[in-house]
Amino acid sequence: MSFASITDFENALANLPPAEELASTAARARQAELTKPLGALGRLEDVAIFMASWQGRAVPRLKRARAAIFAGNHGFTVHGVSAYPAAVTAQMVANFAAGGAAINALAGVAGLELAVRSIDLDRPTADFTIAPAMTEEECLTALSIGAAAAEEDLDLLVVGEMGIGNSTAAAALSARSFGGNVSDWVGPGTGVDGEGIARKIATIDRALAFHADAPDGAFETLRRLGGRELAAIAGAVLRARQLGVPVLLDGFISCAAIAPLVAQVPAFADHCLAGHCSAEPGHGLLLERMGLEPLLRLDMRLGEGSGAAVAANIIRAAVAAHAGMATFAEAAVSTAT
Amino acid sequence: MSFASITDFENALANLPPAEELASTAARARQAELTKPLGALGRLEDVAIFMASWQGRAVPRLKRARAAIFAGNHGFTVHGVSAYPAAVTAQMVANFAAGGAAINALAGVAGLELAVRSIDLDRPTADFTIAPAMTEEECLTALSIGAAAAEEDLDLLVVGEMGIGNSTAAAALSARSFGGNVSDWVGPGTGVDGEGIARKIATIDRALAFHADAPDGAFETLRRLGGRELAAIAGAVLRARQLGVPVLLDGFISCAAIAPLVAQVPAFADHCLAGHCSAEPGHGLLLERMGLEPLLRLDMRLGEGSGAAVAANIIRAAVAAHAGMATFAEAAVSTAT
Repeated sequence: MSFASITDFENALANLPPAEELASTAARARQAELTKPLGALGRLEDVAIFMASWQGRAVPRLKRARAAIFAGNHGFTVHGVSAYPAAVTAQMVANFAAGGAAINALAGVAGLELAVRSIDLDRPTADFTIAPAMTEEECLTALSIGAAAAEEDLDLLVVGEMGIGNSTAAAALSARSFGGNVSDWVGPGTGVDGEGIARKIATIDRALAFHADAPDGAFETLRRLGGRELAAIAGAVLRARQLGVPVLLDGFISCAAIAPLVAQVPAFADHCLAGHCSAEPGHGLLLERMGLEPLLRLDMRLGEGSGAAVAANIIRAAVAAHAGMATFAEAAVSTAT
Repeated sequence: MSFASITDFENALANLPPAEELASTAARARQAELTKPLGALGRLEDVAIFMASWQGRAVPRLKRARAAIFAGNHGFTVHGVSAYPAAVTAQMVANFAAGGAAINALAGVAGLELAVRSIDLDRPTADFTIAPAMTEEECLTALSIGAAAAEEDLDLLVVGEMGIGNSTAAAALSARSFGGNVSDWVGPGTGVDGEGIARKIATIDRALAFHADAPDGAFETLRRLGGRELAAIAGAVLRARQLGVPVLLDGFISCAAIAPLVAQVPAFADHCLAGHCSAEPGHGLLLERMGLEPLLRLDMRLGEGSGAAVAANIIRAAVAAHAGMATFAEAAVSTAT
C-alpha cells in the first residue's frame, strides 16, 4: 500500500475511518466493573478506552508495538539553524543501528520493536527558502515509505524522527498550518543560542514569503516546507488510521509532521495520543491547536521517538490494568455504599 | 532491624545518611558524554543522577525493585468518612493476593516484586477523635513492620497502601504537620460527595482539637493521627534511607505518611521521588510543602501504590538510557559546533 499519486493521498485523507463505538462502549463498561472506584485510574482509563476504540477490541492489547523512526536531511541547514552539523543525522542513524542511542534503550524498556528508516540522507531536500523542499514525486515517495511502516497487525505505532535542522521545518509547517507569529513556533531545538534562534526565524520568514502564494492543503504544505522524514511520519500516521492502528506521537517535530493534515481535516489526529510535551516551546502550542493532551511532561527535547517511547509504558500500564484486573463480582469486593 | 523504642526512631531520624556525591558527580559527567544534547532527556537525566547518588553507583541499576503495600483499618471510619465499608480493606488485600487488583497489573508491567503486608486488619486503630490512634507500642510495631520491607539489596523501594478511610488520616497528618485549613487537605478520597467531605472535615477538626496539646514531633503525630499502614510506610522510607535505597512515593496517603518526618527533618524526603500527583486536591499541596516535583500527572487517585508503579517505568527508562547509551566518542558522533 502506498500513496502513488496526490489523489491517493487526498482520498485517504477524505475517507478516514472512525473509532469503533461498540468496542469503546464495551471497554467503558468494563472500566466501571473493575475493582477500583470508577475514574480512580484517571488517564489510564481513558487510554484503555482509546486503545479499545481504535483497535476495535473491548480488551485492547499491546503485543506488537513498533517505533518507526524516519531520518532525513534538509537543504536549509546551510543557513546555520542547528547546533550540530548535518553529518550528525547519518552518524545518529549508525548509532541507532549499533544500539547506542536513547531510543534503543527506551524502546527496549517499553517493549517496542525499533524500525529505523533513512531516506536519502545523501540527498538533502531543496533549500525551502528558494524552492519547494521536495518535488511531488519525492514527497509521495516519502509518504509511501512512511505508510509501509504501518502494518495491520501492529497494536500501536510510535513515530519519531532524526534530522539535523528539522525543528526549523517543524516550525515552518506549524506556522503555515495554524498561523501565528513565527517566533512563537521557534525554539532552541537541539540547543542553538539567541543568534541561532534569530537565524531560524529569518529562514522561516523567507520560506513562508517564498511559498505565500502556493496552493493551500496538506500535501503542498508538506512538500514545500517539510522534509522526507516528516512526510514519512505523515504517511505512517495516515496509513495507521486506515488500518485501525492507534498512533503515539513524539515531540514537536513528529507532531508538526501531521499539522498540515490536521489543518485540512481536524479529526485527522483522533487516532493519535500525544506521548509528551517537550521542552521546545512550540510543542505545547501545537498540541493545543491539535487538541491533544500529552501523557507526559518530562522536559524532554531529543526527538528520535524518545518521549513517545517513554510514554508507551503508560499505554502498556493502561492496557495491562484494563485486561488484567478482576471485576468487583469476580473478586467479591463490596461496591461503594 | 526494627524500631524497638522511640529512641531508636529518633536516632534514625537524627542521623540520616546523605547522598553519595562521588557517584552523583560521576553520573552527571556521564550524562554530558552520552549521544544527545546535554539536558535533552529532561527529567530522565535528573532521575538517573538521583538514582546514582542514592545507590552510590555512577551507573545505577534497577534489578530488584519492590512495591511494598501496607494495609490497615481505622477506628474513625464509624464517622462515615468513606464511600466504601471498612470490610473492603481485607477484601482488596485478598484481591492483591489473587492477582486481580490494579497494583498487580501495574507492578507486573514495571517489573516490581509485590510485597503486601496487612497489619491487624481485624483490630482497627482507636478512633482518633477520642484517643491516640495507636499506643506507642502499636506504632513502633507498625514502624518496624515497614522497616522490614526495606532491604539492602533493593535498587528501589516503592511504597503504597490500602486502608478504607485513610485519606482522612492523611489529611489529619498533613494538617498537623504543615498547618493550613483542614478543608485544603480534604477531598473526595475514593469518591465521597459533599456531605461526606463535610463529615471528613468535622472528624479531622475534632481529632486535631483532641490532640492539640499533645507533644509535637513525628512520632507522636504518626501514632495519634496516623494508622498502622501509614506508620509502616514511614518506617519503610526511614529504613530505606539508612540502607541507601531510593524510594518512590505514591499518592496523597503515602506522602502524608512521611509528612510528620519531613516536618521534623526537612531533608528527610531527599531520597524520595514523588511518583505522581493524584487527583486528590491535598496531594499537590503536600508535594509542594515537601519540595517534591511529581513525575506523572495522570489524575490517578486509587492508592495501592498504583501511581508509583506507573512512575517506576519512568525510572526504569531513565536508568536504562543512562546505562545503555553510547558516548559521543564511542559512537563517533560529532558534538555541537
